[in-house]
Amino acid sequence: MKLPIALSNRHVHLSQADIETLFGAGHQLTHFKPLSQPGQFACDEKVDLVGPKGTLKGVRVLGPARPNTQIEISLADGFALGVKAPIKESGDIAGTPGVKLVGPAGEVELAEGVIVASRHIHMSLDDAKQFGVADKQIVKVRTFGPRAVVFENVLVRANANFALEMHVDVEEGNAAGVRNGQEVELIAQ
Amino acid sequence: MKLPIALSNRHVHLSQADIETLFGAGHQLTHFKPLSQPGQFACDEKVDLVGPKGTLKGVRVLGPARPNTQIEISLADGFALGVKAPIKESGDIAGTPGVKLVGPAGEVELAEGVIVASRHIHMSLDDAKQFGVADKQIVKVRTFGPRAVVFENVLVRANANFALEMHVDVEEGNAAGVRNGQEVELIAQ
Repeated sequence: MKLPIALSNRHVHLSQADIETLFGAGHQLTHFKPLSQPGQFACDEKVDLVGPKGTLKGVRVLGPARPNTQIEISLADGFALGVKAPIKESGDIAGTPGVKLVGPAGEVELAEGVIVASRHIHMSLDDAKQFGVADKQIVKVRTFGPRAVVFENVLVRANANFALEMHVDVEEGNAAGVRNGQEVELIAQ
Repeated sequence: MKLPIALSNRHVHLSQADIETLFGAGHQLTHFKPLSQPGQFACDEKVDLVGPKGTLKGVRVLGPARPNTQIEISLADGFALGVKAPIKESGDIAGTPGVKLVGPAGEVELAEGVIVASRHIHMSLDDAKQFGVADKQIVKVRTFGPRAVVFENVLVRANANFALEMHVDVEEGNAAGVRNGQEVELIAQ
């Protein structure tokens, strides 16, 4: 029941409309490097996040463009910005706070879209069968080493297009003393 | 088996010699506010930490003065400074990396003393009796809420002068979604 873990740093997903406001009319996101999930990639593009209390400069944009702009930060980032971002599943942005995005060609005042992404496991349908779990099941995950923790409330996201990987944010990863690619243990409940 | 948790931000303990180098000959630390452990206090004094990769400005000094200067940071702080701070119990600084401290009256090039403090529980001897644990015992601690975790490898520090409180760093606290004073559960092993 072992799988690799990865730490997500703060990042931004953008709608095509917001890409064009921030980077110029007709702008297309440029590949910087592929991510572990098929079709996802880190972009050369970066934006600044400006909140009521502070600014986070040079936050990486991830591609491809999405229907809705979504900002994924850590709780510490939220304190620095002065934005109370709730812990939410990716895509669940209704009622979340906004923030100002600043790019080289313009600014976007987001009305909503800032979340702290809840920890989750991407896996294929075959992986789900092997682990004996189902899409949307809540499981636990144990890490190893001097900072070993058991993460509870871990969401399984099983999809034909997903590659097996647990995603936590940097604070969760550091709290557990794990680095990218390290193995963790799934505990089905 | 419930006790309160507290999040320790980065901070500095100073020897009297280093206090005088950083703040001037004969300088005494000034009380800013008391901390939960009897006799410990936050000071008005702050220093900058300067590492090979970056600087952390305005890091709070905690009093009283100690025999040895010790810097407690998070793993993220270590990445920002460019210092590989190991996870260690407070006081166990032999062989740890150093950093440059900059104060208003001078600088100190520390040869060692930078750690990421390992999570621990302060408790009185009476508390230890009530919890059925002993000084230096390793226990687990469970937190509650959407980011619930079980912290493993938690060191019990039982001493007549201690007040009951679990200490984690900010990354551990944020990873568990807990705030200062929130209740957590001790699980003896």
